[in-house]
Amino acid sequence: MPRARLRNALYAQSGGATAVINATACGVIEAARRAKSRIGKLYAARDGILGALREELIDTSKESAAAIRALRHTPGAAFGSCRYKLKSLEEDRAKFERIVEVLRAHEIGWFIYNGGNDSADTALKLSRISEKLGYPLAAIGVPKTIDNDLVRTDCCPGFGSVAKYVATSIREAGLDVASMASTSTRVFVLEVMGRHAGWITAACGLAAERPGEPPHVLLFPELPFDEGRFLAKVKQTVGDIGYCVIAVSEGLRDQQGKFLAEAGSVDAFGHKQLGGVAPLIAQLVQERLGYKPHWGVADYLQRAARHIASKTDLEQAYQLGAAAVKLALAGRNAVMPTVVRVSDRPYRWKIGEARLEDVANHERHMPREFIAADGFQITAAARRYLAPLIAGEAPPPFVDGLPAYVRLKKAAVRKRLRTPFAT
Amino acid sequence: MPRARLRNALYAQSGGATAVINATACGVIEAARRAKSRIGKLYAARDGILGALREELIDTSKESAAAIRALRHTPGAAFGSCRYKLKSLEEDRAKFERIVEVLRAHEIGWFIYNGGNDSADTALKLSRISEKLGYPLAAIGVPKTIDNDLVRTDCCPGFGSVAKYVATSIREAGLDVASMASTSTRVFVLEVMGRHAGWITAACGLAAERPGEPPHVLLFPELPFDEGRFLAKVKQTVGDIGYCVIAVSEGLRDQQGKFLAEAGSVDAFGHKQLGGVAPLIAQLVQERLGYKPHWGVADYLQRAARHIASKTDLEQAYQLGAAAVKLALAGRNAVMPTVVRVSDRPYRWKIGEARLEDVANHERHMPREFIAADGFQITAAARRYLAPLIAGEAPPPFVDGLPAYVRLKKAAVRKRLRTPFAT
Repeated sequence: MPRARLRNALYAQSGGATAVINATACGVIEAARRAKSRIGKLYAARDGILGALREELIDTSKESAAAIRALRHTPGAAFGSCRYKLKSLEEDRAKFERIVEVLRAHEIGWFIYNGGNDSADTALKLSRISEKLGYPLAAIGVPKTIDNDLVRTDCCPGFGSVAKYVATSIREAGLDVASMASTSTRVFVLEVMGRHAGWITAACGLAAERPGEPPHVLLFPELPFDEGRFLAKVKQTVGDIGYCVIAVSEGLRDQQGKFLAEAGSVDAFGHKQLGGVAPLIAQLVQERLGYKPHWGVADYLQRAARHIASKTDLEQAYQLGAAAVKLALAGRNAVMPTVVRVSDRPYRWKIGEARLEDVANHERHMPREFIAADGFQITAAARRYLAPLIAGEAPPPFVDGLPAYVRLKKAAVRKRLRTPFAT
Repeated sequence: MPRARLRNALYAQSGGATAVINATACGVIEAARRAKSRIGKLYAARDGILGALREELIDTSKESAAAIRALRHTPGAAFGSCRYKLKSLEEDRAKFERIVEVLRAHEIGWFIYNGGNDSADTALKLSRISEKLGYPLAAIGVPKTIDNDLVRTDCCPGFGSVAKYVATSIREAGLDVASMASTSTRVFVLEVMGRHAGWITAACGLAAERPGEPPHVLLFPELPFDEGRFLAKVKQTVGDIGYCVIAVSEGLRDQQGKFLAEAGSVDAFGHKQLGGVAPLIAQLVQERLGYKPHWGVADYLQRAARHIASKTDLEQAYQLGAAAVKLALAGRNAVMPTVVRVSDRPYRWKIGEARLEDVANHERHMPREFIAADGFQITAAARRYLAPLIAGEAPPPFVDGLPAYVRLKKAAVRKRLRTPFAT
């Protein structure tokens, strides 16, 4: 019975959810199902790497083909994700060994980890410890982050859909403000995500096609906030066209490098928790210029907005998932499939491959030449890069007026280890 | 030349823009074009009633049929709107007389005013002063308000699309929070519009189809905020299902009737300016329960979100515009077409008619039986009422990944009066 000897695979989702991370899951699962002569079961870890530590595995074979297909149009992280940072192999040796123990107990030969640079780092370490322990494992990363800050890939699944959402939203809100500016709100401020890199802020700029169209001012996390220049720009814009629409990054910093929206709390990775710079900017405008402001904070709405996902982003998310399985079956280890841009117009891309050690813990910054000389707009080069990433629509099915999203059964795999994971 | 004797009509948009107010404009303009044997020119006032005061009229006949058609899918108020409240006929007599002077100068026999209850009041007064002055004018109101608070109509155009947006958004954000709750955000708070009536807050409740699905807590403006009961409910929800999603009205009040998010500023109608109750609720949850919160404020995004407009809402907005012209041609005065619900399931509606004096300055409250006994959810009766209003999708055309919205020429009509409007 050669079937019995097939090794299993484990897929896990990591970090912040996106509108298309489940499309990657779908790509992984469908590719694994097609490779049933080579891969035994495809398990998914419940709540990301924590599921691997706790031996909380989900048997994806219990989900119907239709349910798996529906992952393509369902936001969130369907198997659960987590923010749980493993430290160095030395410091967290017991945890890494525990994961290998779980993998061994369930005869898992491939680990496919879907996340950002922290996750690439974890996958890399797992492949190293397995080697040291003599356990045969191939660890494959799959890129995912709305921050678009992974190196060695042209873009990251999740980003294109946020980009489409924020550009659409600011275009729509801009029309609203334009309608009312003569007697009501003159300045609208939209806060968007992107802690250290201004990719999402830059994407807001796509909404403006002709001079004078909103957004008029982009506040990038890359440039220290210059209050005087900012206020002068807002005043000039209101003077010229009657109103001003602003997109501000949650990660906007002052001249001393301090976040304007410093909230004081810290997440599991030691990242500062941000939120609330839009009301500060609105208040500044009101107090110093006397214009009536309104502000919005899209927060999770932007990264969960599957209803307005980019078709390009969706397709890349899916194909990268399928490519990860292909790499696994090709015997690759400690690598990640990437998006390689072949041409801007027409937009063409293909799947490439990067080594996890080249990706882990590196951060890709937005090129300075993407920001216009005055610091408040994007350049033509930025548009060339960004425009293809938001192209195409792929709306989910709607039932009774609302998107119909799938909830999986998430059937638990029977535990085989006697000891629970001790945190 | 009988054509020369045709009287003209004036259309104006009032108050906050919506995703579908331009669909009403399209209905008005297309109906007027079809009635070219009876109506001369259809003018639009620039920036609402201010355009009538300032004699700033737009000649809609200069817009192509395609541009007018594109109003159906364009948010904002394409001709401009304003918040400018006319007082009583006695107090503001000079202004009302000025408007009649403008109407007379441009041979306008019909005034079609698209707005909420303040606008119904203005249209009514204008019809009365015209009568007193012996100027033949028919004033027709057309309902529009995301607040859904007009009496004598089953619903108000603009509301259904906001309802669809907030229910979609909270369903999507809910999936995101559910994915991450084990190690990250446990409580998400979305602030929605609706100053005095909880219609929009109630619409968030449509996202939950089965027990345990988000949103778990709705905070209505109708019910004074009870901190203790609220915190107990959040704690219980997190205990039961691991996370909690909350929708809060911008108009939430404390036990003394004071807005929680009192910002202190006041708009042109003397309404208090609100915003920012979500961060307060999030902070309360963090401080008192220790759960990590996230919060969003949709603000203008919700009422401008044409990309996710309700097809039902869109159709009603259009038909009410066309009906206003029909009423005008039927010789009606000081009336407003309304939506009459014929049945819930299947949803059937027809156009009705209300007198402006029955609509002006009244506010329709949400029935108490729409709020569940515990005050945190909606009832089956609320669902029956709300569900049809968000039904159907009618996405705008997309170009290069973004909704393609029309910008009109807004050709100015030559002024005929010698005196400008003195504010």
